[in-house]
Amino acid sequence: MTPERNQRIRAALAHRQVDLAVCLDRVHKTHNLSAIIRTAEAVGVHHVHAVWMDQQSGLRKGTSMGTHNWMQIHDHPHIEDAIDTLRAEGKQVLISHMSDKAVDFREVDYTRPTAIIMSQERLGACEEAIAAADQQIVVPMAGMVESLNVSVATAIVLYEAQRQRQLAACTSRIIFPSRKSSACCF
Amino acid sequence: MTPERNQRIRAALAHRQVDLAVCLDRVHKTHNLSAIIRTAEAVGVHHVHAVWMDQQSGLRKGTSMGTHNWMQIHDHPHIEDAIDTLRAEGKQVLISHMSDKAVDFREVDYTRPTAIIMSQERLGACEEAIAAADQQIVVPMAGMVESLNVSVATAIVLYEAQRQRQLAACTSRIIFPSRKSSACCF
Repeated sequence: MTPERNQRIRAALAHRQVDLAVCLDRVHKTHNLSAIIRTAEAVGVHHVHAVWMDQQSGLRKGTSMGTHNWMQIHDHPHIEDAIDTLRAEGKQVLISHMSDKAVDFREVDYTRPTAIIMSQERLGACEEAIAAADQQIVVPMAGMVESLNVSVATAIVLYEAQRQRQLAACTSRIIFPSRKSSACCF
Repeated sequence: MTPERNQRIRAALAHRQVDLAVCLDRVHKTHNLSAIIRTAEAVGVHHVHAVWMDQQSGLRKGTSMGTHNWMQIHDHPHIEDAIDTLRAEGKQVLISHMSDKAVDFREVDYTRPTAIIMSQERLGACEEAIAAADQQIVVPMAGMVESLNVSVATAIVLYEAQRQRQLAACTSRIIFPSRKSSACCF
């Protein structure tokens, strides 16, 4: 292992957000899974919980640009099991869902231990998950379309969490002096 | 047209960000184009400039969940033409690109007239665009992967622009009281 790679691994470990998690409820499109896993890793989230659409689903090698080497994926048979696990870890459980009860995602305190449930691309959040979650959140939209892509919405929420934690000094400044990262690609 | 739809159209028009634009330089994957166009529309950006990979590229019907009905796509033969156009409109031209000259995307003032260049998924920003842009920006990353998905990165930057403009009262609160929007889908 080169010294540079060793340094990167140490820095990534130092910036892990052990009390922030993503929970995917039946999200199944490969490009969405890939983008979500990469974004989670980019903000130091190394634990992703998931309920899969079927046995053939799940994260396959190559889905996430090698990120699976650094992530822990926790499979659950049902969303209630995932929520029970997350709550037992002391996390507030948020769910992205359009309703009159939902609050703007920026109004939530992400410096608390937090899990964010993102649901299936077409079907959206299921009743069981909505009932079990602590808070429904929405990303505000000003246009004519009804929804954002699920990986886009996940990223917007995760980077808000990162912003709040950075401000609260829960994290140090997470851009590496020797390794600014491109904002785009793939 | 129903009164509700009429109201939505009026609200969307009222929240247009006429001095904020996205410029896509050879971005070509359909799911990325779809997600970017939908996100742009969600923050009131109705002008997308684009240089396409080839003549077969471009936005096809169905790519963006009907959003193409509300967007104006401006095609350019070369990125320099796009940048000339954007600068002639008085916009600062930002480009997402990893380099020592790049600044954290949150350090930029998006309340100014602004265009954001996002580049091809694999190749990244070209030399001509980097040279012609006013400022290089990056989204900070704390993990082991090198980059974010291009639609994810675009969304993170656009929602930072929306946040700043909302704070600066350039926009009113852009969540519709009668129509909170789901954070996810498709």
